[in-house]
Amino acid sequence: MRDTTMLHPEDRAAVLVEALPYIQDYYGQTVVVKYGGNAMINEELKEAVIRDMVLLSLVGVRVVVVHGGGPEISGMLKKIGKESRFVNGLRYTDQETMDIVQMVLCGKVNKDLVTLLARAGGKGMGLAGMDGGLFLAKKLVEADGTEYGCVGDITEVNPAPVTDLLDAGYIPVVSSVAGGLDGEAAYNVNADTAAAKLAIALKAKKLILLTDVRGLLRDPKDDATLIRSLKVSEVPALVKSGVISGGMIPKVECCVEAVRNGVERANIQDGRVKHSVLMELLSDDGVGTMIH
Amino acid sequence: MRDTTMLHPEDRAAVLVEALPYIQDYYGQTVVVKYGGNAMINEELKEAVIRDMVLLSLVGVRVVVVHGGGPEISGMLKKIGKESRFVNGLRYTDQETMDIVQMVLCGKVNKDLVTLLARAGGKGMGLAGMDGGLFLAKKLVEADGTEYGCVGDITEVNPAPVTDLLDAGYIPVVSSVAGGLDGEAAYNVNADTAAAKLAIALKAKKLILLTDVRGLLRDPKDDATLIRSLKVSEVPALVKSGVISGGMIPKVECCVEAVRNGVERANIQDGRVKHSVLMELLSDDGVGTMIH
Amino acid sequence: MRDTTMLHPEDRAAVLVEALPYIQDYYGQTVVVKYGGNAMINEELKEAVIRDMVLLSLVGVRVVVVHGGGPEISGMLKKIGKESRFVNGLRYTDQETMDIVQMVLCGKVNKDLVTLLARAGGKGMGLAGMDGGLFLAKKLVEADGTEYGCVGDITEVNPAPVTDLLDAGYIPVVSSVAGGLDGEAAYNVNADTAAAKLAIALKAKKLILLTDVRGLLRDPKDDATLIRSLKVSEVPALVKSGVISGGMIPKVECCVEAVRNGVERANIQDGRVKHSVLMELLSDDGVGTMIH
Amino acid sequence: MRDTTMLHPEDRAAVLVEALPYIQDYYGQTVVVKYGGNAMINEELKEAVIRDMVLLSLVGVRVVVVHGGGPEISGMLKKIGKESRFVNGLRYTDQETMDIVQMVLCGKVNKDLVTLLARAGGKGMGLAGMDGGLFLAKKLVEADGTEYGCVGDITEVNPAPVTDLLDAGYIPVVSSVAGGLDGEAAYNVNADTAAAKLAIALKAKKLILLTDVRGLLRDPKDDATLIRSLKVSEVPALVKSGVISGGMIPKVECCVEAVRNGVERANIQDGRVKHSVLMELLSDDGVGTMIH
Amino acid sequence: MRDTTMLHPEDRAAVLVEALPYIQDYYGQTVVVKYGGNAMINEELKEAVIRDMVLLSLVGVRVVVVHGGGPEISGMLKKIGKESRFVNGLRYTDQETMDIVQMVLCGKVNKDLVTLLARAGGKGMGLAGMDGGLFLAKKLVEADGTEYGCVGDITEVNPAPVTDLLDAGYIPVVSSVAGGLDGEAAYNVNADTAAAKLAIALKAKKLILLTDVRGLLRDPKDDATLIRSLKVSEVPALVKSGVISGGMIPKVECCVEAVRNGVERANIQDGRVKHSVLMELLSDDGVGTMIH
Amino acid sequence: MRDTTMLHPEDRAAVLVEALPYIQDYYGQTVVVKYGGNAMINEELKEAVIRDMVLLSLVGVRVVVVHGGGPEISGMLKKIGKESRFVNGLRYTDQETMDIVQMVLCGKVNKDLVTLLARAGGKGMGLAGMDGGLFLAKKLVEADGTEYGCVGDITEVNPAPVTDLLDAGYIPVVSSVAGGLDGEAAYNVNADTAAAKLAIALKAKKLILLTDVRGLLRDPKDDATLIRSLKVSEVPALVKSGVISGGMIPKVECCVEAVRNGVERANIQDGRVKHSVLMELLSDDGVGTMIH
Repeated sequence: MRDTTMLHPEDRAAVLVEALPYIQDYYGQTVVVKYGGNAMINEELKEAVIRDMVLLSLVGVRVVVVHGGGPEISGMLKKIGKESRFVNGLRYTDQETMDIVQMVLCGKVNKDLVTLLARAGGKGMGLAGMDGGLFLAKKLVEADGTEYGCVGDITEVNPAPVTDLLDAGYIPVVSSVAGGLDGEAAYNVNADTAAAKLAIALKAKKLILLTDVRGLLRDPKDDATLIRSLKVSEVPALVKSGVISGGMIPKVECCVEAVRNGVERANIQDGRVKHSVLMELLSDDGVGTMIH
Repeated sequence: MRDTTMLHPEDRAAVLVEALPYIQDYYGQTVVVKYGGNAMINEELKEAVIRDMVLLSLVGVRVVVVHGGGPEISGMLKKIGKESRFVNGLRYTDQETMDIVQMVLCGKVNKDLVTLLARAGGKGMGLAGMDGGLFLAKKLVEADGTEYGCVGDITEVNPAPVTDLLDAGYIPVVSSVAGGLDGEAAYNVNADTAAAKLAIALKAKKLILLTDVRGLLRDPKDDATLIRSLKVSEVPALVKSGVISGGMIPKVECCVEAVRNGVERANIQDGRVKHSVLMELLSDDGVGTMIH
Repeated sequence: MRDTTMLHPEDRAAVLVEALPYIQDYYGQTVVVKYGGNAMINEELKEAVIRDMVLLSLVGVRVVVVHGGGPEISGMLKKIGKESRFVNGLRYTDQETMDIVQMVLCGKVNKDLVTLLARAGGKGMGLAGMDGGLFLAKKLVEADGTEYGCVGDITEVNPAPVTDLLDAGYIPVVSSVAGGLDGEAAYNVNADTAAAKLAIALKAKKLILLTDVRGLLRDPKDDATLIRSLKVSEVPALVKSGVISGGMIPKVECCVEAVRNGVERANIQDGRVKHSVLMELLSDDGVGTMIH
Repeated sequence: MRDTTMLHPEDRAAVLVEALPYIQDYYGQTVVVKYGGNAMINEELKEAVIRDMVLLSLVGVRVVVVHGGGPEISGMLKKIGKESRFVNGLRYTDQETMDIVQMVLCGKVNKDLVTLLARAGGKGMGLAGMDGGLFLAKKLVEADGTEYGCVGDITEVNPAPVTDLLDAGYIPVVSSVAGGLDGEAAYNVNADTAAAKLAIALKAKKLILLTDVRGLLRDPKDDATLIRSLKVSEVPALVKSGVISGGMIPKVECCVEAVRNGVERANIQDGRVKHSVLMELLSDDGVGTMIH
Repeated sequence: MRDTTMLHPEDRAAVLVEALPYIQDYYGQTVVVKYGGNAMINEELKEAVIRDMVLLSLVGVRVVVVHGGGPEISGMLKKIGKESRFVNGLRYTDQETMDIVQMVLCGKVNKDLVTLLARAGGKGMGLAGMDGGLFLAKKLVEADGTEYGCVGDITEVNPAPVTDLLDAGYIPVVSSVAGGLDGEAAYNVNADTAAAKLAIALKAKKLILLTDVRGLLRDPKDDATLIRSLKVSEVPALVKSGVISGGMIPKVECCVEAVRNGVERANIQDGRVKHSVLMELLSDDGVGTMIH
Repeated sequence: MRDTTMLHPEDRAAVLVEALPYIQDYYGQTVVVKYGGNAMINEELKEAVIRDMVLLSLVGVRVVVVHGGGPEISGMLKKIGKESRFVNGLRYTDQETMDIVQMVLCGKVNKDLVTLLARAGGKGMGLAGMDGGLFLAKKLVEADGTEYGCVGDITEVNPAPVTDLLDAGYIPVVSSVAGGLDGEAAYNVNADTAAAKLAIALKAKKLILLTDVRGLLRDPKDDATLIRSLKVSEVPALVKSGVISGGMIPKVECCVEAVRNGVERANIQDGRVKHSVLMELLSDDGVGTMIH
């Protein structure tokens, strides 16, 4: 089945009631969702994620959304004819680029998400790292002195603006832009890292990273080899054996940092599946890879 | 379908999300459910109703349960070999009978409901009309002087004990027994009336009377003639034409009194259908007859 | 004197003022009273105890009443012609008996006490162990495997429902029935033990067990040999010497457990004396035996 | 009887319990007591009044004390050899006299009362009209232009400092000195008037004026002619007939003003009787004359 | 003088103390400042305005900033090579332009202001009309059917998100972008109007419109003809006589609407003067034209 | 300059804004000011200090004033012709003298300060050591048995009455008179010591002792030798070398005790300079000697 319209009301009620124990488990708990990838591009997926957030918020979960916005930034840079320079595979963010990043993330992506939340009946409020002093960052400098312009490293998280909004009943939507400690007005920061650091500061029960893969796969070509559950202590061996590699390394590292600092569980899961967040929280099965 | 176990998690999530607008509509609102009939006898139905209550409470509805317990009272009277005398078709409640009524309702039915709520993860708290001065009654005396012993007429409702419990996060479970104004320690009161009067005092959004019929039927033998929606102003004509008759008359009167005094909607619906309460609140269709 | 009607108003005022230091001492403190025996049967004594509770509540003492109800249970069992089987001198509580226990305690004794409180101007609210998850018990099983049916052993006390009621200004009246951990819906628990465990969980200043004897007597036939004050450390010697024996042993054990776990003082005193509770709290003399 | 030491504890308890309905009646209500005359000079009476205040405060009455201090002012003026000039029988209060008035009332009488309250276990806090802007006054000028120096007429009462103290659990003790509206730093104001105006601003249930007479007497030489209860509407006739005369006129006027502006009852009673305040509030008889 | 560095500390203290009565007058009051023009471009002026806001916030004024950002929008449009079409002298805002407007206002100007507040020690929090449902707008359509694309007309103001932030101690910084009622995601709204409507909804004491002129001048070429104070009733005559004309008309209309709906005073003043806001609030002189 | 009237409003605004960082530093912090000496006699200085307090209170500093009143006490004693006996250079305070001390401090000086605060728009509330049990003292007895009558030594500070007033928005003004522990009704206590002990109990950020000297001078005849900053550890050497001598010794000891017990900084400064308190808190320079 994939069409629920034929479901009898009694079956609908049964489904709701079966969600009860899961709701009870997350009641009053904080969940930080890093929102990105396809789930942020495809309109239908977007709407599904948004409704998940509103529903969770309504049943008593303290939901926080953190987002980046790579594709929209690239689109805008292209529009102004800005050529990008790459260093170590990372885009060098000069001041003009940074302005675009800030405008697209805080002014476009963030407000569009808040608008979608409002349409689904949710009370969203957007903020960025400079609002209320949420994130402070300094210039990211590699050991060998390489730097990437306005790419920053979060050094301080002040969760008060987010908890103030949660306490007042809002769903905070956070752009991955940080205020600058050292002269710069703003820094572009990695959204996964921002989500992890915020989850730690909020003592969240769960961190969810939405991606465009099913999770951690033993064989990247075979979805059936999905690793459903992983202990922090098992990570090094998997890195060594190459199961965790490439872009997965920093994502897993975010999860490990979160779990090591008090977040109960961190999930890497597939944002291309509709209601992926709800399914993770409100069913036994879970989706993707859970690190704990 | 009648078995939800085969539902895909994604469909389950969809069903939850589709309930969103209904939940939003009842968020923070008070709903009083008069619980009785088969829904209180059949174990499976009982469990379904209880889960409905817990779910509603969890999604932010302020649920209050009011119950009677005719069959259990009869059982106990039989056990002690007490012969019942009937007046105008109503059982005359002498002092010994009243003691049994109080014991069965407040001591057995009430606590069993609280226990079931606890098992479903809910925080129930039982109370009767004497607790915190919730209901005060005087002896019910007909115009012709007929009376029925300790059968009482509620003259005063103090909703504070119920709102105190709701504010502290409990699901109040109320026995239809009232404290006495005029010498008697306690009165047996009609549970439908108690529910209606409590709904008014609580400024509830909805009153639900669970019965053993589908609702108000134009032709009592044909379920297809169910009257889904009824305005208070349409009631007298239906009484005159005999569509509303017998035991339905006092039930409809309770609903009319509730609606006239500020309750938005009052429902007479079928407790024999599983999740009847949830279906009524969380779907467009509704079940039974809605008076407004 | 025993008739206060002749007292001059000025003397009455003097008496009130002389109570001042005692009131100050208990202001805002919690006192748990196990109510039972003659004080619960004789109408005049009953009214006196009830007025004591209301007065204490009004002068700022957080009073909690815990009650059993042996005689009323026996009466009801007799009424339904139920024969009792005894094991080790304890009544075996089969399921049918348990139903009667629950009905009598939670439905009759409890609500009657609440009614009396209301008549004396107090705001009582009745609850049992299942309400709000106050008491959880498991089947009481002796070392040799003997068990007594639904007689339970309290394993968990959640004082929140009682403190919620105290904070909202009610006098909680607690029946000695517990919710079941292990399949059973409810357990019959010893009221002295329930009172002691609740006093501990509430960090009460005082536990009072009302009995039908003057207190602990060196010579049970001579009231003049009353032991007024007893240290926990002195108890074993008195048990050994037989001064504490028979039914006094479990009562003293309750007191010792309470004091060992933070209750300041535990009193075994004579419920047959009018205003025994008030006298104990509001005078130097005290009544009965104080264990500390 | 006049010695309560021989009272049996059980009788003491009975007396306390008999006070119950009176306490319930005043629970959470505000009572303003104008304290003066012998009750403020005789050490034994003083202690009795103070204990009355502490007891009332403890049983939930919001007690406010307002005091003057004529005799102590005279004593101090004599000490500095200050000759008093009289106008219309009122002492003309020049600036030097005003300084003495302020010092004696706010610095001596007020703090001594607070000290006595503390010794009786009460939490008193002294304040005068300038504290927190409680009383503002302007120069009292008669119709014919006569004035009495720093004798003032209260034109504004801001009850916030008193209610702030009551809410924080203190017994406010108020000196009859007001801040000046018109250049003067402070004014000497009549304590009866100050008490009446404060009672109105506080929406007090009762105003008590302690005097050195039994109350209003039809025959001033015969205590048996005490008028126990008087309606505001009956006052003019009694003034005309001379029953209310001399110093009683302004006192009765204060009571009338208070009652006309919402105070339920105003009492003129004998401060020479021990526990006069307590007797008035906590017994049927009442003492003195009650205007309502 | 124009250099305060030579001021003696004692003179500095005197200046602070002389500000006292003005501070007291605005303590706890709401002031809405429409920030724009030169004050938003010149770095020194910008810093001065920002410091004014932080100071006012610190001394207990509830400051709200509303901003537009015309020049920065033009700059960005130019960057992407977007040609503007004008209708009735207003720029037609097609969807692509609207995206730029939203990005520049919410993502750049807003966050830069928050950053400046943070650097001055203030706790700013940025929001736009969609956040928490602050502003809802519909398409602006002239009587003759002319419309300007995504230029909107505010139809609903929900001040809760702003008051929630003020109550939590933040300085709200509001972009003049509204959520859409009728299908559009967002509307570009006039910042003066948005400020006026927000001031009304917040029951502000004062509305300040910062402009690039001294205020309303009788002779626009002569600053000495500044109209310092103007009653709402005097406006029509001044419009008729041409004193109020051109771009001043809508600004004065905003002020009139604000004052008519409960805002105490509305000011049109010169943002090119350093500390113009502070001078207006904290001195007798005032600056610009005050409409009341 | 010494006349600020010629300052341009823009310069005034600049001065205010330059105070910003200092205000931020003391926002929500407690500052205890011992008020005495010339600052309490000269009318112009008095007004300046009072305005400083009101301004500080308004900008969010929790200001507490502690005062003595030597000269006014001497004046009053002279007025009643009381001869003073001196012991070890300290005035022996017999009971009659104590009465004068209490009257002058609590009744005159205290209320006059509250009146001045009110005139400057501040909400002062006066209290002495007996109010709410703020200070308890016992008789001061030297090692050799010498005592000084009612001169007391503070043994207990209960800061609740002061924090209750601060929380309710008042500026507490505290007389240096303590309640008696040992029979005496009241004790005269040293105001510097009272201020220091109160600062400790309030966990104040700063203690300021206003004196009639510039601070601690290396050469008492040369103001240029002012010691601006002093560590607690440097004190003993300065006592030894005689730089700290005479009346300075107890003042420095108060500061040292305060700092050792958690007060961040203690200042001895010149009350003869206008706005000395404001200058100390709201500028870099500071005035007088700061001990930390």
